[in-house]
Amino acid sequence: MKRSAAPSARTRVRRLPARAHYDAQAVHAIVDEALSCTIAFEWEGSAHAIPTAHWREGNHLYVHGAKASRTMKALPEVQACVSISLIDGLVLARSAFNHSMNYRAVVAYGRFERVDDPAAKLRSLEAFMERIAPGRWAQLRPVTRKELDATTVLRLALDEASAKIRAWGPKDDAEDLGWPVWAGVLPLEIARLAPRTEADSAVQEAPQAP
Amino acid sequence: MKRSAAPSARTRVRRLPARAHYDAQAVHAIVDEALSCTIAFEWEGSAHAIPTAHWREGNHLYVHGAKASRTMKALPEVQACVSISLIDGLVLARSAFNHSMNYRAVVAYGRFERVDDPAAKLRSLEAFMERIAPGRWAQLRPVTRKELDATTVLRLALDEASAKIRAWGPKDDAEDLGWPVWAGVLPLEIARLAPRTEADSAVQEAPQAP
Repeated sequence: MKRSAAPSARTRVRRLPARAHYDAQAVHAIVDEALSCTIAFEWEGSAHAIPTAHWREGNHLYVHGAKASRTMKALPEVQACVSISLIDGLVLARSAFNHSMNYRAVVAYGRFERVDDPAAKLRSLEAFMERIAPGRWAQLRPVTRKELDATTVLRLALDEASAKIRAWGPKDDAEDLGWPVWAGVLPLEIARLAPRTEADSAVQEAPQAP
Repeated sequence: MKRSAAPSARTRVRRLPARAHYDAQAVHAIVDEALSCTIAFEWEGSAHAIPTAHWREGNHLYVHGAKASRTMKALPEVQACVSISLIDGLVLARSAFNHSMNYRAVVAYGRFERVDDPAAKLRSLEAFMERIAPGRWAQLRPVTRKELDATTVLRLALDEASAKIRAWGPKDDAEDLGWPVWAGVLPLEIARLAPRTEADSAVQEAPQAP
């Protein structure tokens, strides 16, 4: 699915539309790289913004949580908006006004649906683990039925999603280019530090980063 | 302001309340470390989740944007929820069920107010720059009145805020501790990579990280 126009009015990027991408490939790449998203929804008269881990299968974004969680109970009842953003750098221009950030962001609208079938739920959680630590699922103490029942898995079709990307240096006004100040990008990256093994871990060798 | 109880019902952390912190010091430290937040609000019948850069002055969280932006126009009219999260690590347990993430998160509720006074607005933008690149404000081409007029600055009092922190290894079931799989934390950190100087930058030496 490659498309160049917004799938809905509320998905259309209005500020700086040159940064907008509406094709599934752009959306999926950002969803896949980010570890967590923020879900916005209205519930009991308040807007809520809840951060949570996510993963993707096909054109769906998945989240999970405790069955008893208010968010897990509320989401299938309401329209939600999911926001993902990766901050790639600080963009330092010659004027304060032209400072910016480099980022890759996705916003998706829709309603989450519950994955109720136990086998489908289990497969989804395995896909989540594969995202975090490939090959680990088979090494773990197997999931019990009680654990599975205590876990809610929700998914949102990424039908109404857009990506917004800024990935370049400062755009200064022509008359500012000679201003005697450093101009450029301070890139940021999420780095994995050395693994911290539990004192009582039966295996000492940490998994490789995916 | 040091407090041990939630400032409001919707601010009270219900899932895993042992991870909750309600004192301003804990909230401010997370707000200060994060570069961006996600603002949730209801507008024209949809929940929206908009990521944006933020900074803090005293007990207020500040954001800014183009005067013409829908979000900047909508926010002073509605109740909002601001979510900030720093992902500090992946927590790998012996069972899938006990996997987790280490994180520092803040959720704040309230209504944004516009900072209209031009001098106050300018001081705020200087505080934002100081957060990103200390000492840089004085080196920049000065802000024009037109630029200032085209910029909206909003602030939210952090009166109704809570922090949630997880910062420890896996918590496995006692009977799983001997399971033959690696257990521990894969720490994550936002790293600054080497600055990328613009080809036509009048100054070659990049600013130091704050």
